[in-house]
Amino acid sequence: MNVEANLDRIGIQLEEAPSPVGSYLPYRITGNLVYLSGAICLRNGVLEYVGAVGRERTLEEGIEAAKRCALNQISTLKSAIGDLGRVRKVVHLAGFVWAVEGFKDSPKVINGASDLYAQAFGEAGKHSRAAVSVSGLPGGSTVEVQTVFEIT
Amino acid sequence: MNVEANLDRIGIQLEEAPSPVGSYLPYRITGNLVYLSGAICLRNGVLEYVGAVGRERTLEEGIEAAKRCALNQISTLKSAIGDLGRVRKVVHLAGFVWAVEGFKDSPKVINGASDLYAQAFGEAGKHSRAAVSVSGLPGGSTVEVQTVFEIT
Amino acid sequence: MNVEANLDRIGIQLEEAPSPVGSYLPYRITGNLVYLSGAICLRNGVLEYVGAVGRERTLEEGIEAAKRCALNQISTLKSAIGDLGRVRKVVHLAGFVWAVEGFKDSPKVINGASDLYAQAFGEAGKHSRAAVSVSGLPGGSTVEVQTVFEIT
Repeated sequence: MNVEANLDRIGIQLEEAPSPVGSYLPYRITGNLVYLSGAICLRNGVLEYVGAVGRERTLEEGIEAAKRCALNQISTLKSAIGDLGRVRKVVHLAGFVWAVEGFKDSPKVINGASDLYAQAFGEAGKHSRAAVSVSGLPGGSTVEVQTVFEIT
Repeated sequence: MNVEANLDRIGIQLEEAPSPVGSYLPYRITGNLVYLSGAICLRNGVLEYVGAVGRERTLEEGIEAAKRCALNQISTLKSAIGDLGRVRKVVHLAGFVWAVEGFKDSPKVINGASDLYAQAFGEAGKHSRAAVSVSGLPGGSTVEVQTVFEIT
Repeated sequence: MNVEANLDRIGIQLEEAPSPVGSYLPYRITGNLVYLSGAICLRNGVLEYVGAVGRERTLEEGIEAAKRCALNQISTLKSAIGDLGRVRKVVHLAGFVWAVEGFKDSPKVINGASDLYAQAFGEAGKHSRAAVSVSGLPGGSTVEVQTVFEIT
């Protein structure tokens, strides 16, 4: 599995892992599990998507925001484990969408992250998941994604 | 432990595990932990309870919705591990209630799921838990439940 | 590492672990991971902080509420494992802030919990994290914190 070649094929280059925006670590490893801290949709230190889906943001923008969060998770994972080929599987993804009250399409939004993992890691990228809508996210980010990986 | 006999005694039969409503797996196993994807209150492909507790739904309906989510988790677990007797313990349950702003009774709602696990699995069904209220869930489901199980 | 001496140095004594407010256990151990149930900001059985940040509660009060939640998690952990010196690391903290719609500063609020873990456990207290805002928490608590610890 060559994750970065897979990403390159769809026109994506990994960027620098974003810095934590609080008193926590970007990741913590226990046994062969890597718990990443939740990623918001930062790009080069600036949020790409701010605002609630269904009001300031469209569904399509929400999906793009989720994809950006997943990319940030992969960048952080690379900084954590060095070689992304060490990923055995994505275990679990928790997806949070800032959206208008009663928003029903959090799964469609979070598919932006899930599909990116599948493209990057193939079969290993498939995962269990929970997706919910919330009333606010750090810095006004449209999406937050938090992932647990299993590594060798 | 005969989980299905326990359920039968309280008049409940397991149904087909619901299909994922997005780009993810119904479950992922890492070591002896089974991470299930979040279940909404689907029955035969249709949501049994739609709407926010405190507005479209009563507390009692919320509790029933949580119970339905837990049943769906058990169905998915059975499809994952074959024999429910392999469950050593329920480790953790994350419960999300779609409710009106300021709703305080998410624990009462999520007890619908926790009590069902205790009835199905006995001592092994007891678990740690977090329950929160959110502003929207997939498809407008009243409750979402996501569980981690330990198996032999 | 003497966790209680560390807390004493900053003027904090551990209190009795709060009782669960629903049909669940205060903690569940799987392998060398301790999953705690989510803690709200109870002190001696009464919520210290009730209400949404940005409306009934200030940011500063939210931070104090998060600190109280973290202290309650440590008390529960002590009741679970006896000797807090058995903690190898804090693995993951999930932080939920009840706040007004669009609240952006959940990381600042949850730093109240993260900083307390660092003060109590030193390097071992650092952790991965996800922080989100939600529309309601158990009993009207301003904050809920849920933690996974690794022990020896």
